[in-house]
Amino acid sequence: MFYTKRMVIDRIILGIDPGLAHTGWGVVHQMGPRLACMAYGCVTTTADQELSWRLAKIHDQISAVIERYAPTCVGIETVWFGQNITAAFATGQARGAALVACAHSNLEVGEFSPKQIKLAVVGAGGAEKGQVQYMVKQLLSLSDVPKPDHAADALAAAICFTTHQGFAGKLGQRVG
Amino acid sequence: MFYTKRMVIDRIILGIDPGLAHTGWGVVHQMGPRLACMAYGCVTTTADQELSWRLAKIHDQISAVIERYAPTCVGIETVWFGQNITAAFATGQARGAALVACAHSNLEVGEFSPKQIKLAVVGAGGAEKGQVQYMVKQLLSLSDVPKPDHAADALAAAICFTTHQGFAGKLGQRVG
Repeated sequence: MFYTKRMVIDRIILGIDPGLAHTGWGVVHQMGPRLACMAYGCVTTTADQELSWRLAKIHDQISAVIERYAPTCVGIETVWFGQNITAAFATGQARGAALVACAHSNLEVGEFSPKQIKLAVVGAGGAEKGQVQYMVKQLLSLSDVPKPDHAADALAAAICFTTHQGFAGKLGQRVG
Repeated sequence: MFYTKRMVIDRIILGIDPGLAHTGWGVVHQMGPRLACMAYGCVTTTADQELSWRLAKIHDQISAVIERYAPTCVGIETVWFGQNITAAFATGQARGAALVACAHSNLEVGEFSPKQIKLAVVGAGGAEKGQVQYMVKQLLSLSDVPKPDHAADALAAAICFTTHQGFAGKLGQRVG
């Protein structure tokens, strides 16, 4: 007798929207075709705080989220800055701090362009911010649009990860 | 009787030249007017390695250097990238990973522009790379110019910190 074994994907996915002042995060539970929001939030630091302290806060709070919700993978946006070098450098530092936390917990990292995320969440690569936020609310059966926006963007990155089934085989492995 | 108590600065300073592919580091012991090189090196990662793994390697090796040589402060360059967004973003991530390690050990962070470092090491803000490397060798009484260049640049950042006596009063404190 032949049969096909179908794997039901059951995994917890972290989404991160990195930024020095605001790093949004969201945790999504994917079980087969169902998605559920486990938690979301935002790490906030202010310009009067010392840079290394701000980065450590981002690292430590993302570490705490990973420890609490035990995701196995993380979706994170590859940001496009136009010509804004200062923003790229600041966001880069925050992203580095967050990714160190992910690497220390062996999370599989999926990097997605804004277009990929919009395509996965809304179905249109050119969707507007409001549409993305509305679809995050709908897909995760939330009663309201997640606030702040950074948390909604982080959940969108996590949702984008769920559509990348190809990653499933790599779970628990570190690439490279 | 009146007398003036003169503090002799005795501190260990870490210098970091951050980069995703090469993060140079150097440790300088400052005792009064004397400088001595304790160690230097370079954390190297390659493009075929996963990003978060590269960042974790930078973080972990800088942490190991801090644990081994017990510096109380760190000098790091504020880099100017011209119009190269990609380089700014990559270096930002590496810098973020390294600074998280520094913050976790409560190091006082001094950020210096390339001009400030050249001024401190060579005495001229417009000095060339070769002059900086030569002066690093001379000031630290090394037999050769430190290699790779990233290590020499890291030692230059540490030397720049030594000239900032104003920082001395803040040792062991975290700002912000």
